[in-house]
Amino acid sequence: MLIVMKSGATKGEVDGVVQVIEKLGFRAHVMPGATRTAVGITGNPGTLDPARFEHLAGVFEAIRVTKPYKLITLDLQPDQTVVRAGEATIGGKELAIIAGPCAVESREQTFAVAEAVRASGARFLRGGAFKPRSSPYDFAGLGEEGLQILAEARDTFGLKIVTEALDEAGVDLVEKYADMIQIGARNMQNFSLLRRAGKSKLPVLLKRGIAATIDEWLLAAEYVMSEGNYQVVLCERGVRTFTQHARNALDLAAIPVIRHISHLPIVVDASHAAGKSHLVAPLARAGVAAGADGVMVEVHNNPDVALCDAAQALTPEEYLTMVHEIRGIHNLLTSPVSA
Amino acid sequence: MLIVMKSGATKGEVDGVVQVIEKLGFRAHVMPGATRTAVGITGNPGTLDPARFEHLAGVFEAIRVTKPYKLITLDLQPDQTVVRAGEATIGGKELAIIAGPCAVESREQTFAVAEAVRASGARFLRGGAFKPRSSPYDFAGLGEEGLQILAEARDTFGLKIVTEALDEAGVDLVEKYADMIQIGARNMQNFSLLRRAGKSKLPVLLKRGIAATIDEWLLAAEYVMSEGNYQVVLCERGVRTFTQHARNALDLAAIPVIRHISHLPIVVDASHAAGKSHLVAPLARAGVAAGADGVMVEVHNNPDVALCDAAQALTPEEYLTMVHEIRGIHNLLTSPVSA
Amino acid sequence: MLIVMKSGATKGEVDGVVQVIEKLGFRAHVMPGATRTAVGITGNPGTLDPARFEHLAGVFEAIRVTKPYKLITLDLQPDQTVVRAGEATIGGKELAIIAGPCAVESREQTFAVAEAVRASGARFLRGGAFKPRSSPYDFAGLGEEGLQILAEARDTFGLKIVTEALDEAGVDLVEKYADMIQIGARNMQNFSLLRRAGKSKLPVLLKRGIAATIDEWLLAAEYVMSEGNYQVVLCERGVRTFTQHARNALDLAAIPVIRHISHLPIVVDASHAAGKSHLVAPLARAGVAAGADGVMVEVHNNPDVALCDAAQALTPEEYLTMVHEIRGIHNLLTSPVSA
Amino acid sequence: MLIVMKSGATKGEVDGVVQVIEKLGFRAHVMPGATRTAVGITGNPGTLDPARFEHLAGVFEAIRVTKPYKLITLDLQPDQTVVRAGEATIGGKELAIIAGPCAVESREQTFAVAEAVRASGARFLRGGAFKPRSSPYDFAGLGEEGLQILAEARDTFGLKIVTEALDEAGVDLVEKYADMIQIGARNMQNFSLLRRAGKSKLPVLLKRGIAATIDEWLLAAEYVMSEGNYQVVLCERGVRTFTQHARNALDLAAIPVIRHISHLPIVVDASHAAGKSHLVAPLARAGVAAGADGVMVEVHNNPDVALCDAAQALTPEEYLTMVHEIRGIHNLLTSPVSA
Repeated sequence: MLIVMKSGATKGEVDGVVQVIEKLGFRAHVMPGATRTAVGITGNPGTLDPARFEHLAGVFEAIRVTKPYKLITLDLQPDQTVVRAGEATIGGKELAIIAGPCAVESREQTFAVAEAVRASGARFLRGGAFKPRSSPYDFAGLGEEGLQILAEARDTFGLKIVTEALDEAGVDLVEKYADMIQIGARNMQNFSLLRRAGKSKLPVLLKRGIAATIDEWLLAAEYVMSEGNYQVVLCERGVRTFTQHARNALDLAAIPVIRHISHLPIVVDASHAAGKSHLVAPLARAGVAAGADGVMVEVHNNPDVALCDAAQALTPEEYLTMVHEIRGIHNLLTSPVSA
Repeated sequence: MLIVMKSGATKGEVDGVVQVIEKLGFRAHVMPGATRTAVGITGNPGTLDPARFEHLAGVFEAIRVTKPYKLITLDLQPDQTVVRAGEATIGGKELAIIAGPCAVESREQTFAVAEAVRASGARFLRGGAFKPRSSPYDFAGLGEEGLQILAEARDTFGLKIVTEALDEAGVDLVEKYADMIQIGARNMQNFSLLRRAGKSKLPVLLKRGIAATIDEWLLAAEYVMSEGNYQVVLCERGVRTFTQHARNALDLAAIPVIRHISHLPIVVDASHAAGKSHLVAPLARAGVAAGADGVMVEVHNNPDVALCDAAQALTPEEYLTMVHEIRGIHNLLTSPVSA
Repeated sequence: MLIVMKSGATKGEVDGVVQVIEKLGFRAHVMPGATRTAVGITGNPGTLDPARFEHLAGVFEAIRVTKPYKLITLDLQPDQTVVRAGEATIGGKELAIIAGPCAVESREQTFAVAEAVRASGARFLRGGAFKPRSSPYDFAGLGEEGLQILAEARDTFGLKIVTEALDEAGVDLVEKYADMIQIGARNMQNFSLLRRAGKSKLPVLLKRGIAATIDEWLLAAEYVMSEGNYQVVLCERGVRTFTQHARNALDLAAIPVIRHISHLPIVVDASHAAGKSHLVAPLARAGVAAGADGVMVEVHNNPDVALCDAAQALTPEEYLTMVHEIRGIHNLLTSPVSA
Repeated sequence: MLIVMKSGATKGEVDGVVQVIEKLGFRAHVMPGATRTAVGITGNPGTLDPARFEHLAGVFEAIRVTKPYKLITLDLQPDQTVVRAGEATIGGKELAIIAGPCAVESREQTFAVAEAVRASGARFLRGGAFKPRSSPYDFAGLGEEGLQILAEARDTFGLKIVTEALDEAGVDLVEKYADMIQIGARNMQNFSLLRRAGKSKLPVLLKRGIAATIDEWLLAAEYVMSEGNYQVVLCERGVRTFTQHARNALDLAAIPVIRHISHLPIVVDASHAAGKSHLVAPLARAGVAAGADGVMVEVHNNPDVALCDAAQALTPEEYLTMVHEIRGIHNLLTSPVSA
């Protein structure tokens, strides 16, 4: 924490701030400047609320310095985490591709899509059995029946299953049928759910909340890890801004920024950021070019009749073209000549 | 839904769109214009995804028209809802004041604050027993012990208790001790929690998510109501924008906008929007001036040692001054002369 | 500037940072902490770019401390500025009301509105002769003819004229006919225009840019003042956020925040924030309740045929009701009993 | 325009709306639905303000349909525009690279950077002679002397010069020395400047405003084109959001969205979006992967002593690596096999 005094702050006011800091058991470092004095605080075990100091006499503002996370940091673990579901990995050398329908609608639909996913060489099949929907009147998924269909597809096509849990009971079910627990954007700060996922043996794919800062997102990962589950994949899926031309604004600077702080792998959900199918491939390519460890994308064998997010689903053909492109970009950036 | 064709769309393309609409069982209305043709859709039972039509040949864009909510609307109930906790009301003639500490820290602290709240004539005591915290390392509340302290304060001071539940198990406990269930901003789209609150006999205070649109917020209320609980209070608490000088940006236009759509009462949480105590009273006054049915505010008998959100807590003295001001504004706007 | 080192930074890396700081001619203050070391910088004459230090070995991040403005600060002038146009003031005891049509359309229209404005007791007539329009095909104002009509209205009704200049040549014309130069939101960082206004003898009403931070806005005022013109009024008119239900989001926390930093008066433009007439009065009331020195508002004698921003114009009747309400709130908050 | 009536709107209210529409000279199309009636408007020559209809009796909301731009559209010109400065092109087959220092500081600095730019095979040298700075106390560029240095560099290195004009007088000077006029983000809606650039014989590089919608940006281009200058390059440079980890959020969905609407070429300014040098290459790669026609980037021979935006400047070495990567991605996406 750094306390910045007003330019006309008196020595008494500076001393007052120092006393408050020392009373809290911390150490104060007074730095007199040309126009104003600053006071650094060290020795605080966790983060301090900057605003706590701002009403003290003579204080202009207080600025937070210490970051509140620990387990996610490169300080703690300098090597990048590789998340594993059997032989399939996220964060290793291979570009991870997680593809499938928005919602599991039927065995036929899921198998048709899974076939295309398998054909592309992807290792992960996504599909929602429990769908969070803004309106209570929209299709909310097939529930456990959907999970059973996904488990069958796994056995048939050899793909690992990534699917969302909406609550603690949902995690129990996902653990029974799937290979990776997805926590959705709306639940990024559902701390009961995060703690429950942190007690699971399955890896967790943690989507960024629609207006989450990098710090809040990393702290959500910290919740999962603080319960003992270190297999966490971050998923950037776009944030909400004033723009309306796409569903969300994919925040690709987040990728190199997080690389600077954390060892956790990051994938990009191009479909939810896009909201429209003709934007998906450009955003998926951009995500890989920015350095993502993988791409998550929605595919539907017949988008015109999809029960959920029809407009953003790729057809199998569009999907295969996109996979070809993103693999090309990934190879280009990771080949020894380029590096 | 309104489909806008490209300016050079052919008759065949327009016919194609009409066929798709009719195949879905809806009615198409072709409107030829000077430069382009539009096609209206009626007869759809719920909302349609605009993007679903945007990839059809000749289509420029599709615009959603029908709103997805029902129970919250003035169409359904033209008179404003009055939410009741015993004799205390929100949405009636009296300005509702919900005040108390951010977190219940101890019996002494809670009683000291409750005394100030009672002295102000407010009818609701707020206080968190379960605190959602961005970091897993921060104080997360006293849990059931906190609820017991609140229940004691209710008996001692005659105040109604408003307190947050973070999950379904938390609703069970809140029902046991309190008078109104608060759903926090981070959980506004925790649909399992909303459905559980919808089955409660207690009224629900539903905070707006940090980046929720008005429609998403009203649909969250619709989730609660669709389970049978019609006693819902909306609570505007600020949204996240590019600005950093306050914790959140209190969106006061939301008040008259919602009055135009819904019969549900709205209160303003001035403390979370402010983040700093010297901004709280101005924002509380602004909220009442904009037409809010009440104000929620954090008070602490000793903000300097508060365990949670210290910087935004009012002292009892600041709180009493604020109550005097907001009552004055409310009286001014509701007195017959002014109206 | 505060440099925060990585947790594992070596002594050599800290020394390296200190050397860079001293080489730049500043003073370095090393503060060792429990987990990481911070280095404060003092002695820098102006602001430093934080990012400049972030690529040095062992540095985690750099945080700016010094604020770049001078003339606008309470440090420089502790008493609030009162801006004067003859006897009319903004920032004094009286609530300033600046009302009139969006655009001057004709002598008849302007006089009809001016009559209502005069009847309300307001002292300022607004009206655009040069209108910045997003599209080149929209009505852009009557130009100098519009200014002449405004000047006539001034003579007839005894009101002071506030009108926008879009470029340096426009300032010449506004100086010839009007009493206060308005700089619009789109031009808040048109530095050539700001410098020209800074050389004028007329006061300047400076609207906040649609996505301007408080610091950028204050620095724009600093541009005007640095040329010698100290008569500046800040005008909050709403910022752009993800919300779409109002034209812009009126940022009322800006009022107490700026009071904390600057001596310049602040008014609220309720019409442009609202975008719809039924939102104008609630937002104007909220602005005054939050502590604004005045309100700017659009009035039209016949909104249905207005050439510009028809939907947000108040009728004269709606306007008079609003004036009654905001004066009531202002009196309440400034009367000795309340204070 | 589409008028959506309230669900309980009477036939009289619908008729009233129709009468207003017909009185304005347009045609009304009544579409009765299951729960509510909509009324389409056709025959309006330009755009209508939706809010204009929203206060009519029985109206729930009004939705704009017609887009206000013409010259920028694919409707008008289906083939993509190729902007030319001599043999150098933007929007053609070659990936355009515009590189150079933020500000021209000296002949030595400019020449050192120009040499690296030339070595990379790029055809455009950027560099600011007139710098828009948030603070009046920051370095504002060398002015005409800077332009002379740029013109010398052009002659020496055979590069085309892209440089910013801040006002109409600045355009006169830029025309004298340079090859392309840059309009900065802060001036995107400085309509006097846009009109002046529209009368120039030089091409215009138009940066997106920091909070501009796609429509506003395209309309700014329309201003330039409506004066006769059709050689316009759009430059996406990031928008302002709640995020703070990068200077701005590069909005890459804008690229495919604009491709859907307009024939104008689009480049990406990776440096201003990033704000920090380690984010520049990832964002430049992402921009090309998303389909940009070119990249604009800041390079400095000695970033540590740069007078402007030091932290985001690439060194010549970093720059050359980036060029290698983005050319690789561009070739991959435009090679016949990939397509």
